[in-house]
Amino acid sequence: MISIVILGTGNVAKHLFDVFRDINEINVLQVLGRNKHKLSYFKDKVATSTDFSKIVDADILLIAVSDDAVAEVAQFLTGKKGVVAHTSGNVPIAALGHKSRRGVFYPLQSFSEGKPIDFKKVPICIEAENKVDLKSLQELAQLVSFQVHEISSNQRKSIHLAAVFANNFTNHLFAIAGEICADNDLPFSILAPLIKETVEKLDYLPPIEAQTGPAKRNDVKTMESHLNQLKNKNYQDIYSLLSKSIKEKYGQKL
Amino acid sequence: MISIVILGTGNVAKHLFDVFRDINEINVLQVLGRNKHKLSYFKDKVATSTDFSKIVDADILLIAVSDDAVAEVAQFLTGKKGVVAHTSGNVPIAALGHKSRRGVFYPLQSFSEGKPIDFKKVPICIEAENKVDLKSLQELAQLVSFQVHEISSNQRKSIHLAAVFANNFTNHLFAIAGEICADNDLPFSILAPLIKETVEKLDYLPPIEAQTGPAKRNDVKTMESHLNQLKNKNYQDIYSLLSKSIKEKYGQKL
Repeated sequence: MISIVILGTGNVAKHLFDVFRDINEINVLQVLGRNKHKLSYFKDKVATSTDFSKIVDADILLIAVSDDAVAEVAQFLTGKKGVVAHTSGNVPIAALGHKSRRGVFYPLQSFSEGKPIDFKKVPICIEAENKVDLKSLQELAQLVSFQVHEISSNQRKSIHLAAVFANNFTNHLFAIAGEICADNDLPFSILAPLIKETVEKLDYLPPIEAQTGPAKRNDVKTMESHLNQLKNKNYQDIYSLLSKSIKEKYGQKL
Repeated sequence: MISIVILGTGNVAKHLFDVFRDINEINVLQVLGRNKHKLSYFKDKVATSTDFSKIVDADILLIAVSDDAVAEVAQFLTGKKGVVAHTSGNVPIAALGHKSRRGVFYPLQSFSEGKPIDFKKVPICIEAENKVDLKSLQELAQLVSFQVHEISSNQRKSIHLAAVFANNFTNHLFAIAGEICADNDLPFSILAPLIKETVEKLDYLPPIEAQTGPAKRNDVKTMESHLNQLKNKNYQDIYSLLSKSIKEKYGQKL
């Protein structure tokens, strides 16, 4: 049995709490958070507190707060016996101070309120400074997911950056595509099969080989006609810059 | 029974031919193409010819060639009784010349060699200049897909532009994310669940509401750290420009 304390009440804290609760080998002892309203989600299911001086000890103390608050919350955990691990993509392990047994338990996924996630498929990136703590985090990770990776702080920084391209930026491109549809009385759903295929193809081909489109084949006429259709200056710049980057990647003359 | 002639031997021609062959109500009479090697794919299954002066007549003559070649191929169809329809996203119906019964039969999907497609889910965008021809194209489209849309040439141009954002550009972002992973000894597959979730979320939320990440919350520190990690000048510019566009969209101060 692994005992856990969760510090934080946001989306990551909620999703982790829900998945931990369903696993017999995990016992969540306490959830802490400053925001009473957000804490109410956990209230009837586990001991809760807004008072960070009253944190109980546990095998693993998980800090699931915003990046900026990790170091501050970690200070309350000085002297705890358990492993102190944060759940952030972009925060180095060193942010946890130098007194605790330090670790990272980073679930690489985008969590939204109310949208259920199959945790078994979420890659968990773990890091620790000694073998015993690494083993503890590994045990916990393997209970919730099939995909557990030992990842250094530097690698985790890179994953976080790659995730911005693969998730945040692609979503913005979807939003732009949606705007173009709306401006022309077309439902965004008409693009759904294409978008799904774009992603399904990645199971067969690496993206570098799956590339198609006017920029790759340096189809200047089509690119000009597309640029003329765009009214928003940012979208024109995005079109030009991404086309330039694709052209260079595939050795087309600029 | 709808009779069809296909002009062209590329990916779209092949995929359409394969789906037509499986439908009892469709009879493909002939496939034409200049490239003998490419034509061999069809040889044992249907009458083929490299001679465009020997095109037989049919209810629908489908031009599935590259955008630049549509007008040229259409010239061979002057005098044919059937509907002449091209399959292009970015070519106006007028490119078919002014003598034929003109139409468009545009399957909105990215077709790759060897990667099977469930055509029932591919939106087919049809256009014609009279009701009888529109009905013929509609009948054909409904035999192959559940999603048939009557779309004007102008709307089709917009869809094609939106598709470049939703497919070509997102794929390039996936390629950049893959490069960042490779540079840091990480498998690209670690991002797969995140990428799948990015797209699955679109069934629940429009992309404008699904946006997350440092640019949306104007997290300057994280964006600076990300920019410092990028070595490629294009990728730096893409990071800055997409972040700027997201910030403006969500009303963050620049």
